[in-house]
This record gives sequence, C-alpha cells and structure tokens, in this order.
Amino acid sequence: MPKRATKGGRGLPEALAGISGADNVFSEPSRLEEYSEDMAGFRATPAVVVRPSSEDEVRRIVALAGKRRVPIVPRGAGSSLTGAAVTKGAIILDMRRMDSVLKVDTVNWYARAQAGITLEDLNKRLAKEGFFFPPDPASSSLCTVGGAVAEGSGGLRCVKYGTVKDWVVALRVVLPNGRVSNFGEPLAKNRAGFDLVHLMVGSEGTLGVVTEAWLKIIPIPKATPKRLLITYGDWRSASDAICQLRASRIMPHIFEFLDRETIQAVNAHLDTKQDEAEATLIVDIEEDSLAEALETFKRNKPGKIVVAKDAAEAEAFYHIRSMAYLAIRGLGKAVQVEDIAVPVDRLGEYMAKVKETASRHGLRILVNGHAGDGNVHPVILYDEQDRASRAAAHRAFEEICRYGISIGGSVTGEHGIGVQKAKLLREQLEAHEGKEALRLMKEIKKLFDPDGIMNPGKYVEAA
Amino acid sequence: MPKRATKGGRGLPEALAGISGADNVFSEPSRLEEYSEDMAGFRATPAVVVRPSSEDEVRRIVALAGKRRVPIVPRGAGSSLTGAAVTKGAIILDMRRMDSVLKVDTVNWYARAQAGITLEDLNKRLAKEGFFFPPDPASSSLCTVGGAVAEGSGGLRCVKYGTVKDWVVALRVVLPNGRVSNFGEPLAKNRAGFDLVHLMVGSEGTLGVVTEAWLKIIPIPKATPKRLLITYGDWRSASDAICQLRASRIMPHIFEFLDRETIQAVNAHLDTKQDEAEATLIVDIEEDSLAEALETFKRNKPGKIVVAKDAAEAEAFYHIRSMAYLAIRGLGKAVQVEDIAVPVDRLGEYMAKVKETASRHGLRILVNGHAGDGNVHPVILYDEQDRASRAAAHRAFEEICRYGISIGGSVTGEHGIGVQKAKLLREQLEAHEGKEALRLMKEIKKLFDPDGIMNPGKYVEAA
Repeated sequence: MPKRATKGGRGLPEALAGISGADNVFSEPSRLEEYSEDMAGFRATPAVVVRPSSEDEVRRIVALAGKRRVPIVPRGAGSSLTGAAVTKGAIILDMRRMDSVLKVDTVNWYARAQAGITLEDLNKRLAKEGFFFPPDPASSSLCTVGGAVAEGSGGLRCVKYGTVKDWVVALRVVLPNGRVSNFGEPLAKNRAGFDLVHLMVGSEGTLGVVTEAWLKIIPIPKATPKRLLITYGDWRSASDAICQLRASRIMPHIFEFLDRETIQAVNAHLDTKQDEAEATLIVDIEEDSLAEALETFKRNKPGKIVVAKDAAEAEAFYHIRSMAYLAIRGLGKAVQVEDIAVPVDRLGEYMAKVKETASRHGLRILVNGHAGDGNVHPVILYDEQDRASRAAAHRAFEEICRYGISIGGSVTGEHGIGVQKAKLLREQLEAHEGKEALRLMKEIKKLFDPDGIMNPGKYVEAA
Repeated sequence: MPKRATKGGRGLPEALAGISGADNVFSEPSRLEEYSEDMAGFRATPAVVVRPSSEDEVRRIVALAGKRRVPIVPRGAGSSLTGAAVTKGAIILDMRRMDSVLKVDTVNWYARAQAGITLEDLNKRLAKEGFFFPPDPASSSLCTVGGAVAEGSGGLRCVKYGTVKDWVVALRVVLPNGRVSNFGEPLAKNRAGFDLVHLMVGSEGTLGVVTEAWLKIIPIPKATPKRLLITYGDWRSASDAICQLRASRIMPHIFEFLDRETIQAVNAHLDTKQDEAEATLIVDIEEDSLAEALETFKRNKPGKIVVAKDAAEAEAFYHIRSMAYLAIRGLGKAVQVEDIAVPVDRLGEYMAKVKETASRHGLRILVNGHAGDGNVHPVILYDEQDRASRAAAHRAFEEICRYGISIGGSVTGEHGIGVQKAKLLREQLEAHEGKEALRLMKEIKKLFDPDGIMNPGKYVEAA
C-alpha cells in the first residue's frame, strides 16, 4: 500500500488562494456540500475545493498537495456512481473552468479539449464541423471529458462504437509529483513506447490529473439508422433475439432493453401508455440490415415490432429509454444502479438471476440498459433509512455481482470501481486468474503515486 | 536500469529438453542461424531455441530463465524490422507450435487464439464464420498473433480500422516471475482495474510472454468498396487530395501512396506498364461516397483516375502495392524500410524532406505506404558492404526521423522501437513533452521484470 496521505492542511485554503485566487477556493461547510456527495449518494467531506483555470495552476496545486501530503482528487461533474469523486479531507480540484476546445482537427480527425468541458458541449462544437465523439454516457450533458477519461465511460452507442477507451489517442497529465507530461501522440498511428494513455483511461483519478485529451472523432454518419421498438412476453425470447442478431453478424447502433417494471415506471412518470411487456427492446439498425434484423426479431414471437415511421417517433422511442432513470428514482426512497457486464449469450440467465435475487431478498430490482453488449443495469430499490432494507440491498448487490463473476462477467462495464466495488474487483480478478494482474496494478499505483496523495483509499489500492 | 541478465546457461539445452522434449530444443549454430536475424537484418545469436507446445511449458521455461538469469525472448515469425526478435545469448521461445484457435465466439464477437497462429490462418478460420480480424500487416501470411500483439502492428486497412491495439480485449500472459495471469476480460465492456492489456500491446516482448489473446472480430462487410487508382504529376497535389478527402469526412478503407521510383521498380519487377507518375494513390472508397471522392480527386488535376471495373482489376491495383517491397528489394544491395508517422496535413512537406535528404546524402530513398493515416514508408537503398554508404543511410535515417519528430510525428507508426530506435524514442518523448512518460515506462519495465530477463537491452530500457 502506498503511504497514505495523512497530514492536515493548516492554512491550505490560503495557500490555494495564492494559486487560483480567493474567489476560486472555498472551504465553508455550506459550499463544500455540493462536493461531498456523488450521483449515487456516496458521501465524504473534502477539506477544500479549488477551481483552477490553467494547467500551471493544477501543477502548482498538485505540488502543494504532495508537499503537505494532503489527498487530492480531480473532479468533473461528480457524476460518479461509485464514490470515485468524493474523498474525506481532500483538496477537490473542480476542473470545470478548464472547458475549452483547443482544436478540432478535421484532417487528422481528433479534437483536443481541456478536461473540464462537458461531452455535450464538445459534441455541439464538433457538430458544427460534421463530426462527433461517439461515447455517450447517460450523464453526457453534465459529465466532463476528464471524468469520462478517468472513468472510461460507456453509453448507448458503445455497442457499435466501443467506450471512451477506444477514443483517446493522447493525454496531458499532471502527475502526483507535480510534473506535467504528455502521454501518447495525437496521431492515427504511434508505436513509440508503452501505452500509458490506456493506463490513464479508467484510472479514476488515482494516477494523476488529466488536464487535456486528444480524442478521436469521426464524421456524423450520413444515413440515420432505423429505430425499432420490439416487445416480448418473456426475457428468454428477448435475449435469444439479441444472440441471434449478433450471430447474424448485424451490428446495431444502439441495443437497449427495458423490463416490465421499467416501462410501468416510465408510463407513470410520463403519463404514456407504452405496452407493459416483460421485455422491450429499442434497437437502431442500418437500413441495409433491416429486413434480416426484422426476420430475426420475428422468429422469437414478439408481442409487437414497430419501425419508427419518422424522426419524431424515433425520438419518442429513445425518450422511453432516456427517461427510465428519472422515472425509477421516483419509485423508491433510494436507488442503486448496478453495472455488471456479462457475455451476451449469458444475459438471459443473468437477468433471471437478478429477479430471483430480488425476490429472495424481498426487494424490487428493475433491469434496463445496454443489452447489446451484455451490460444491463439492475436498479435496486430500497429504503436507505431502514437498516434491514439497506442490508438486503447490499446483499442482493453482492450476490448479483458474484453471479456475474461466476459466468465470466465483470462487476463493472462502465461505472468503474471507486470505493463501492474494491472488494469485488479483487474477487473478480482472483476468480478470473488475474491475481498477478491485481498485484501489478497495485505496484503501478505505488509507482505513479509513491506518497499516496491521488484519490487515495479507493479502487486498485483498496482491492 | 533493471539488473541485466548475465549468467550463462551451462546445461541449459538439457534443462529445456526436460521441459519441451529434446526434439524441440536446439543450440547447434546451423539451426540457430534462422533465429539470429530478423526481417530487417538485425543480427544477434541466441544461446538456444525452444519450441514449447503449451502454456505450462512456457511457464516452466520462463521460470528457468529467471532462476538462471538468462535472457528470454518470445518470437513468432521473426518478422520484426527493428531487432526486437533477436537477442544475444538468449533463450528464444519459438511460439509457433502453439497455433490453435481456441474459440470463435460469433455472439460476443471475439476469437481466442494461441500466440503462435499466423494472422492469415486466423483470418481463414474466421472467414468460415463470416468474420475477420481487421489489422493486416504486410507480413500477415507469416506473422503470428503473439508477434502482432507484442508489436501493436498496423497495415493497409488500419486507416479505417485502427491497429492491433484497437482489437485486443484480453490476454493471457506468462510474467517474468514465471506466474501466469489473465489481463482484461473477453467482454465488450469491462472497467474492472487498470488497463494492463494495452500496456502489453506494443511492449515488444519486454514485459512478458503472451500465450493467448482474445481478439475482437467483426463481420466481413457485405459491400465491397470501390477501388480507385489515381495518379498525380506532383506530390503536393496528391497530399492535398488526401487532406481534402479527410476534411470531406470520407473514410477510405485503404489509402496507399507510391512514388515514381516505386512504380518504376514494380514495372521492372512485374514487367507491367503502369504510368510512372510522381504520385500514385490506391484508394478504397465506399460506393455511397464515391461521387464525392471523385470530385475531390479531380479538383487536384490528376493524371488519371481509374475506378476498377471488376474484382480482377481491383486485385491488379492492390498487387502493385503488395509487390512494392519485393520489387524494391532487387534495386539495392540493402534496403531499410522506415516507418515515421506524421500528421496527415504535414505529409506533403515530410515526403519532400525525405527526397531532399536522399539527394543531399547521395542516396535513393523511395516512398510508399499508408498515406491515409500519415504513415508512409521511406525505403532507403544502400550498400551494406560500403562503409560510406552505410553511414550515409544511417545519417539520412536519423535526419528524417528527427524531421518527423519536429513536425509532430512519431518515429514509428507500426514497426516499433526494438534496438533500432531506442535513442530516437528518447528524443521523440523529450521533444514532445513526454520525459516523465519515459521515466514511468522505464519504471514499469523494472516493475514487471526486476531481474531484466525479458528481451533485455532494448526499447524502453535502452531509450
């Protein structure tokens, strides 16, 4: 374990004000509140928040944290769902003032952006040139480039385009020793040196502070795929259809699943009358694969298949999916959105296990999400004020994670580890013959951050 | 620097024979010859060659090398162009007996293959299921999965599909300590832990031995793109056309360039009469972008534009490109194929610099290769028996590498570093603000291989 940052920070706000200006430093409890919780409700109160406006400020702040042995945590929108963005007693680096697009290179097809811009704002800028950055986490309107890189985020389009990991060519990083380095090159091809870029992607702020990213971009496709809404009376038929579609070598652009309870919640929330079938699929298919895809979906005895007749209907289908989380939030006192990824051919049995687990613990667990890449989200409803309910939710959560591990899955497809799944990360790697991998990860953490100041006590270090 | 492996291996062949059988171990000078040179002519004579048939044998052999502090080098076809596959006094692990495809998963879209299978044989197997593995190094018929992973190889299709780096989801690795570990998960999405997979891709056998890889595969596209052959009377027009095509947001499937001297060599070699224009492009474009692409190519005053009328003509165009290396080999006593990658918008000036450098040193340097991603190959002709010629070639090589670095390029797009470019790797990283990155790479090498037995004295360690 790296040495843990322990020393307090007397005069820390003043020292930080000397770097970023007093207006950009605060340590009053009322103003720290926003930074004391992530989107899943993981809580920890930082010592101080600083909002740097330049790489040089970041560098000086990290050097200060290193000198004083104070934990330091880069933060974008705080939309983490695993506690990755909250740390007790830490300096929080709110990166959102560093929100420029530094370059859109339409010949080399990359965008160079500062860490603090949101994915939505980046994509608005890219759209002007006819390009886009494909990964689309649900939090795209809030979440920042830096956060998405640190978390290696996913999203709906990832079934076709992959996750953030597949779209980063180079990074600019302030290391825990206060030095700045480029990792990678903004080139289509580069074989010069070990790949440190991908070591940073998904490192959850534990190896350094990403200040800039060179992201691959691609042209917005000319043809809009067809959007389908398909219902099935049982899950097995839906999951069989997914497997058959993939075995038919058809690449969907999105492939989402919603269970009956999710549709019921959406209907209640939006006052709509969508069929409350056991399984609803929302799928984007390119025109030239449409006939074959329809054949596949029909083979499994669907309730209905609707091909959106126009952009408005396509948007309405998407809206069902995009409103699911808000609709569900209203159902329980607390919700926990889980994130296990399983082999696509094990999805049916995995979802059945989730429901069986819910039933056994007297809980409601809804399921929806990215079925096309095996990454559906069980959403556990519980009462956080009720100790028994909380304990049941926790047991159910661990059981479905362990079941996922047992069928070759990962405890996280896109949300990451944070504090929430450090123990499960260890279980997964040990079960999947990755014990040495875990040892190397821990050593890499120590190598980058010998004093243990970068987002300490989490993730690999805590596994 | 890690401790260097130094101790000899008395009785080493016998000990290895105890693991893989006497038939699969040899140390006679005549049989070592094949393993003493790579495809670019880098030479170093190993102590012994062993041909393991299983992971367990690899594990025991690596453990033995560790115990005796003997260098050990995994090797596929030896098609390295940088000296990565030859090491003096080493145990060479010829991985080619481990050549099985362990699984073709048509639902999860990956292939699990042993390290020793060639890319061509893998693709033959995948084609039966309608899938393919896109990266296509020129050596595909020879080079192995393990070699392609270790080198992070590229190829013609990479302008559309990226390099090997973009196609590996998980690896099975024998580490220098003799332990076996999985890195990554064979899943579309996985965020559990730091990304060690991409640390291994492009590590050139210096961090461990890859025994198996889980590779992403995709369906063979239904539509064959149109193949075009375009000539220009000057390079600037050709490179302008490339930039304009990219700015038009058209994604070619291949985009190759050949200079006049390359075409002359091909004509002489094949007894053909291809126009000997200053610049010839061979480009694959999807049908629905063809009209716009033709507009772009016409804008720059081409000599001619031919759209292949059928598969035979398309194949004939490809043949010009694929025969270029063999045709050129006949021209000089020795050839050195270089591999700088530059931003696409700097390609024109870079190629001019190559020719100017050749002229200044009294050398012939031909240029051909992957123009669409900025990765053309200068091919330096020289006489290796002539000291002055050798020296001139070396100076020219370093000068064009340094020029590439100065315009934001990388000294290697796909061939890697090996022993050839260790010094230039340092220069590149220092020039591109990656000094700390290099430090971390060296530390990672030590962390994985504290005794310095894995392919020592090269690459990051030597930079």
